[in-house]
Amino acid sequence: MNIDEILMDYEAVMRLALERGFYFPSCEVYGDAQAGFWEYGPSGVGLKNKFLELWRRELVRRDGMLEIDGSQIMSKSVFEASGHLGNFADPIIRCTECSSTFRADKTIVDVTGIEVPESAALEEFDDAIVQNNIKCPKCKGDFEKTRNFNMMFKVGIGPEGEEAYLRPETCQSIFVDFPRLFKIMRGKLPLGIAQVGKSFRNEIAPRQSLLRLREFYQAEIEVFCNPAKLDEMDRFSEIENTVIRVQADGDPVSMTCKEALESGMVPNKFVAYYLGILMEFYEKTGIDVKRSRFRKLGDKEKAFYAKVAFDFEVETSIGWLELVACNYRSDYDLSSHTKKSKEKFEVMDNDEKVLPHIFEISMGIDRSLYTILEHSLRDDKEHERIVLSLKPYLSPIHIGMLSLVKKDGLKEKTDEIYLQIKRKCDAFLDHSGAIGRRYRRLDELGVPFAITVDHQTLEDDMVTLRMRDSMEQKRVKISELESVIVEAISFP
Amino acid sequence: MNIDEILMDYEAVMRLALERGFYFPSCEVYGDAQAGFWEYGPSGVGLKNKFLELWRRELVRRDGMLEIDGSQIMSKSVFEASGHLGNFADPIIRCTECSSTFRADKTIVDVTGIEVPESAALEEFDDAIVQNNIKCPKCKGDFEKTRNFNMMFKVGIGPEGEEAYLRPETCQSIFVDFPRLFKIMRGKLPLGIAQVGKSFRNEIAPRQSLLRLREFYQAEIEVFCNPAKLDEMDRFSEIENTVIRVQADGDPVSMTCKEALESGMVPNKFVAYYLGILMEFYEKTGIDVKRSRFRKLGDKEKAFYAKVAFDFEVETSIGWLELVACNYRSDYDLSSHTKKSKEKFEVMDNDEKVLPHIFEISMGIDRSLYTILEHSLRDDKEHERIVLSLKPYLSPIHIGMLSLVKKDGLKEKTDEIYLQIKRKCDAFLDHSGAIGRRYRRLDELGVPFAITVDHQTLEDDMVTLRMRDSMEQKRVKISELESVIVEAISFP
Repeated sequence: MNIDEILMDYEAVMRLALERGFYFPSCEVYGDAQAGFWEYGPSGVGLKNKFLELWRRELVRRDGMLEIDGSQIMSKSVFEASGHLGNFADPIIRCTECSSTFRADKTIVDVTGIEVPESAALEEFDDAIVQNNIKCPKCKGDFEKTRNFNMMFKVGIGPEGEEAYLRPETCQSIFVDFPRLFKIMRGKLPLGIAQVGKSFRNEIAPRQSLLRLREFYQAEIEVFCNPAKLDEMDRFSEIENTVIRVQADGDPVSMTCKEALESGMVPNKFVAYYLGILMEFYEKTGIDVKRSRFRKLGDKEKAFYAKVAFDFEVETSIGWLELVACNYRSDYDLSSHTKKSKEKFEVMDNDEKVLPHIFEISMGIDRSLYTILEHSLRDDKEHERIVLSLKPYLSPIHIGMLSLVKKDGLKEKTDEIYLQIKRKCDAFLDHSGAIGRRYRRLDELGVPFAITVDHQTLEDDMVTLRMRDSMEQKRVKISELESVIVEAISFP
Repeated sequence: MNIDEILMDYEAVMRLALERGFYFPSCEVYGDAQAGFWEYGPSGVGLKNKFLELWRRELVRRDGMLEIDGSQIMSKSVFEASGHLGNFADPIIRCTECSSTFRADKTIVDVTGIEVPESAALEEFDDAIVQNNIKCPKCKGDFEKTRNFNMMFKVGIGPEGEEAYLRPETCQSIFVDFPRLFKIMRGKLPLGIAQVGKSFRNEIAPRQSLLRLREFYQAEIEVFCNPAKLDEMDRFSEIENTVIRVQADGDPVSMTCKEALESGMVPNKFVAYYLGILMEFYEKTGIDVKRSRFRKLGDKEKAFYAKVAFDFEVETSIGWLELVACNYRSDYDLSSHTKKSKEKFEVMDNDEKVLPHIFEISMGIDRSLYTILEHSLRDDKEHERIVLSLKPYLSPIHIGMLSLVKKDGLKEKTDEIYLQIKRKCDAFLDHSGAIGRRYRRLDELGVPFAITVDHQTLEDDMVTLRMRDSMEQKRVKISELESVIVEAISFP
């Protein structure tokens, strides 16, 4: 954009979301609506569906992965094996006076600046609370002893209420389905299995709309591999010159995947390949990847089973947001499920029997969509408009179809063109209001193109095509409209 | 197909589903896996995604509906207002000896043939059990008194476990979101709002894989309308000649939508229009609509708030399956939520203030997919093969890309063509095994086209294109392949 543009912040995105149908709180007409549950409105659904289509193109299909769609309610054994029943808990403290509950670690750091790690023994939190004389932020009451609060939602199945859980991550379906999938789909290592779906976490303090939800969307990819062959990756050449930004101890550094590999920042071709295709995907979402980093987690931060872990983070108005966790999970998952289920998770890799290792690309969809919106939203002060500069292929609506005025047969002509193009793209028909206001509204919705039918159209069978970002207008023949549009909105 | 074909049954579809990755039980490696939870494998996901794309094209986009995606966990008030907390219950009986639980109505009808309606008073079930001396089918023990078992799954939110529920139907999100959506999306009556998503019902006796699930997919459409204008429907002309099969008291009768309207079988143009476009949608799914019916529900069967209700049912090997419930729900939903929430659900229709009535098209996705599979699966005895004759645009894989043999450069040539077409369609590359067996496998997976590279290809740059249903083969120039394929697999 060659215009005076100002990037916008969380509050501006929230206003847009509420007023233009991207997202809004669930059950908002009721007083007992719970925090941490949000709905996607029509604009949000459009953006999400197209984002997922891009994800399928750039990751799933590109790499020849399998995609599954598993049940959200899963049996207790799954989470005994995964460790969630034992360990997936937050340390919480409850006020003896007003019964308000808080996360112990967050309360301590907020009041004192002291960081007690989430995974510390419960006594450490109690000690910190006593030593620093921490009281309830609401009523100054004393706290009960710290206890662990499991973040999974329990559900009772059947009339006897047998114990089961809403999955806290989609990947568990992929792990337990692996033996069947490998067999019936004639799997070969490395094999990527992907899934898009809801996960559920009973957060103590959900906040910031899409950024910390109790019910949220993940797109997870688990790549099953032979750990002895992590540098046998022909496809590495496809991404060796792709630039990623990697951060270990100092500032993020831009380098090609090849450089990241050779410098030892990324341990092998296998991991480098997936970081590379992930970066190529995010470039196409319109997120400003110059403000991104693959942050290499230190030993204290990463899960105990992860040999190497990178968080893909992007800078926003409210700080760095983690959009994707990339973990080399070794054989932790398949070993745990083997032990608990007594099933065989080993497979043949040519003549070798292998318990596959797993590299995971765990993407938060809601946060990714938020970041796309924030990085695309601009205040164009010169033209007194708000512009959502989404990539055309991600725009919920591709084309605004407008009549300059309703009379003189312009409405009918516009309807006729709309009927002709509406199966080829997402088009929105709008006859009412001043043309300038209609353009502004389309700009805010992220509609990349507007087509206007005016009196001249009736004479020369041409329409005005207006470009959202440049505000340029040009005349296009109606007969050529379809091919112009299809070209302009197609995925890269 | 001009071949000796035999339609296949539930068991054959189940075998196909398990062996070819359409669907399989959730958590199957564990002994505590619960009944009523299934996963879609890669073939199932492909079919489902394409089915939903067709649904969007033929219903949502065609009618200019809004699509939302709401939270699955919803607040208690929603289900107080909707009546689910009070009434969404099955009458159940529990054995005093072995503690097995059964549905009272089903047990009574199984043993005696007597039908006590699901909605009868609890005493009526107890009376029938005593009078007919009904004992536990498992251990011959006596039953406890009949009680109501609410079929919603309860979840506890936050550390205090505040009461909320997994939605038993997706439409409740649409009802409670209506005021915001109508306002921000500049709604005009009639307005369709659509949603695809999971719903949850704690069935006592889940069974038959996708046909009675505890966690299932719905695609629901709620059309908000002015009840005074149900015959003002210009778009009716689009479907007036579309043939539907309607059943009231006697056998199903084929008639055009216009005839259905004029004969009084369908009460108004508004309802007739939506039955018409629904029929046109199902025709395109490949379901044999000659074996379908819109069954008009009698007063006893339909919900008390429904002024008119049609179940769209299709005949399968295990009887008539209800795929869609079409209910004219009057103002029941918006009145209930108005009363409970004190929010305004009335809107302006031109100069008139209206509390909209609702016509609902509530589709079971899982059952629809099952029916598509059953109606498409054939035993072609003449050629000793099983063929899944899916519509090309619904096939999980469009193209099988095969090398006749791996050697002599055929593998490389095949890979080259695969790379060229794989972004235009869903292609599957297969180099290994006898060519005949590979064709058979593709036939079972429903792949409509196979492309084979042979020695001649290296000379004339042509490949063999094989058609699944007819088994016809023809030579096609590689340069023309892309346009031939895109044409063949595109949505109608």
